[in-house]
Amino acid sequence: MTGTITRTRKPANDALLAIQAPVHGRLNEVVDEMHRVVTDDLPIIREVSGHLLGMRGKMFRPTLALLSSDVTGRSEPRATTLAAVELMHLATLVHDDSVDHSVLRRGLPTVNSLFSHQVSVIMGDFLYSRALTALVAMRDLDILKIVTDVANALTIGEMRQLGAVDALAFSEDEYYALIRAKTASLIAGACESGALCGAPEFRGALAEYGERLGMAFQIADDILDYTEDESVTGKPGGLDLREHKVTLPLIAGLGRVSVADRSRIDDLFAAEAPDDELIADVIEIVTRNGGIEYARRRGGAFAQDAERALHVLPQGPVRTALTDAIAYVMDRRS
Amino acid sequence: MTGTITRTRKPANDALLAIQAPVHGRLNEVVDEMHRVVTDDLPIIREVSGHLLGMRGKMFRPTLALLSSDVTGRSEPRATTLAAVELMHLATLVHDDSVDHSVLRRGLPTVNSLFSHQVSVIMGDFLYSRALTALVAMRDLDILKIVTDVANALTIGEMRQLGAVDALAFSEDEYYALIRAKTASLIAGACESGALCGAPEFRGALAEYGERLGMAFQIADDILDYTEDESVTGKPGGLDLREHKVTLPLIAGLGRVSVADRSRIDDLFAAEAPDDELIADVIEIVTRNGGIEYARRRGGAFAQDAERALHVLPQGPVRTALTDAIAYVMDRRS
Repeated sequence: MTGTITRTRKPANDALLAIQAPVHGRLNEVVDEMHRVVTDDLPIIREVSGHLLGMRGKMFRPTLALLSSDVTGRSEPRATTLAAVELMHLATLVHDDSVDHSVLRRGLPTVNSLFSHQVSVIMGDFLYSRALTALVAMRDLDILKIVTDVANALTIGEMRQLGAVDALAFSEDEYYALIRAKTASLIAGACESGALCGAPEFRGALAEYGERLGMAFQIADDILDYTEDESVTGKPGGLDLREHKVTLPLIAGLGRVSVADRSRIDDLFAAEAPDDELIADVIEIVTRNGGIEYARRRGGAFAQDAERALHVLPQGPVRTALTDAIAYVMDRRS
Repeated sequence: MTGTITRTRKPANDALLAIQAPVHGRLNEVVDEMHRVVTDDLPIIREVSGHLLGMRGKMFRPTLALLSSDVTGRSEPRATTLAAVELMHLATLVHDDSVDHSVLRRGLPTVNSLFSHQVSVIMGDFLYSRALTALVAMRDLDILKIVTDVANALTIGEMRQLGAVDALAFSEDEYYALIRAKTASLIAGACESGALCGAPEFRGALAEYGERLGMAFQIADDILDYTEDESVTGKPGGLDLREHKVTLPLIAGLGRVSVADRSRIDDLFAAEAPDDELIADVIEIVTRNGGIEYARRRGGAFAQDAERALHVLPQGPVRTALTDAIAYVMDRRS
């Protein structure tokens, strides 16, 4: 079992294409659907929407939703409407970037930097309400409940993150609550609502799979910030530390550091704009004290839980793709 | 007929209390419901929610929703859940204030000024998603469709407003499209969803009533900006002009002004921060050229349409209250 969730040498893109293969054609329909949902006559909306759909990313969540709908080969046509869930996600990214004053997202200028802060706030609201309009048109109250609960979890996650900015006292449990709200809830929601479009008997299993996968996904992401530099991930290494964000490697390392190491970490969190040397030092301290190793272990445990949740599913290309998605999450470098 | 929709001398508060009388007890339930919907364990959310509910305003829309549900005396208990529509409105106000960098709202500090821009954006999203969660729990797809369409109209209204900031070319039709999206849609939605909670046979009539009432409401609001000063409305007179917002009195006046008057207006729109004298001059120009009179006439026409929409309703205290709500909208000074 562990073979599937440890590092392989396949490049991430090929791995993703293999995962998407069983639903490849329908992913194009999802993209068309995303365009349809955000279309409007107002020129400014058209312009911002076009820009946003250009940065739509790897379509990982829509892939999971479509795969989940197809685990017994009975995926319904309406499963493509779950594209709206990805638009909801895009809406939260637009607001996040505005809140964080981010300049780049997926290698492209953010809405707040290209247009304005005002346009970001309103455009996020627009995307969100349009996504909901599309989901309401599905006339499925169970899906609406999943999706609105996710939307609420996302905002609570954001609030937790705001509240946690300068908190070296941030505990491991609080960290899990945060990433459950801000990342795992959305991936779980994609899988669970997907299940309702073709495989309702596996709704619980797929929700659990998605939730554990989401936890592993965010932990892997937070490790990358310590281990990879900009040339690999497309964003500067150590960015979380620079922004005083406390993630699992640091939380785990903190419990074991010497007084001298601890004082260096305190320096970083006291510095309004910590310099590269200070950041490199803290990365070294966290690594030397086993913080990254611990985070990898915890991420691996979530990944194993995700794989275990799939055991009730029938064997076949879709279950294989969902299993491979776990390896993809653990192996990705960007 | 016109007697009910022209000026009376009754102070606004008494007038509002009379309108609310048929549903007075249930308005308290609505306030309780609003508290329930936004409750959360996270201290920062509790704090901001408490502040926001303290500025919840006159409860005009919940009043209309409850009255609409009760036009035949069969209002359902779930009508109080429409409180969530007011929370959706509150969410848009929080984002508006953040977008406009406003400092005060209803005499209290805005969320962006009291907390931060970040908290505003996220808190707006939180309120909106919580409101939707409550509405989804009603399990009524027709109400959900009304509410999500309204939410979408609100964001399009906001976008139109952003796009219109420096536009002296803003036409009367564009103005109506703007206020329909940003104000009338919400009031219409409150009335229509109210109707679905006890008087579905009057759904169309009440939607139409709400829409026309909303148009009259916003026109009256825009006139107040020209006619009343801070001591009456609680916000400085001429604020729209100061912010280069073009509303109906100016649009109407513009068509008739002399070359000299027009150049004074151009001066105001060219000035980044127009001074009080310039604002007072333009108010005088708009007034002298019949802009306010024209806006009053158009507002009056919408008010008459609103009253006409009520004709199919059975006579009784609720219809009377809805009729009085028209006079209240036309007479209010703040």
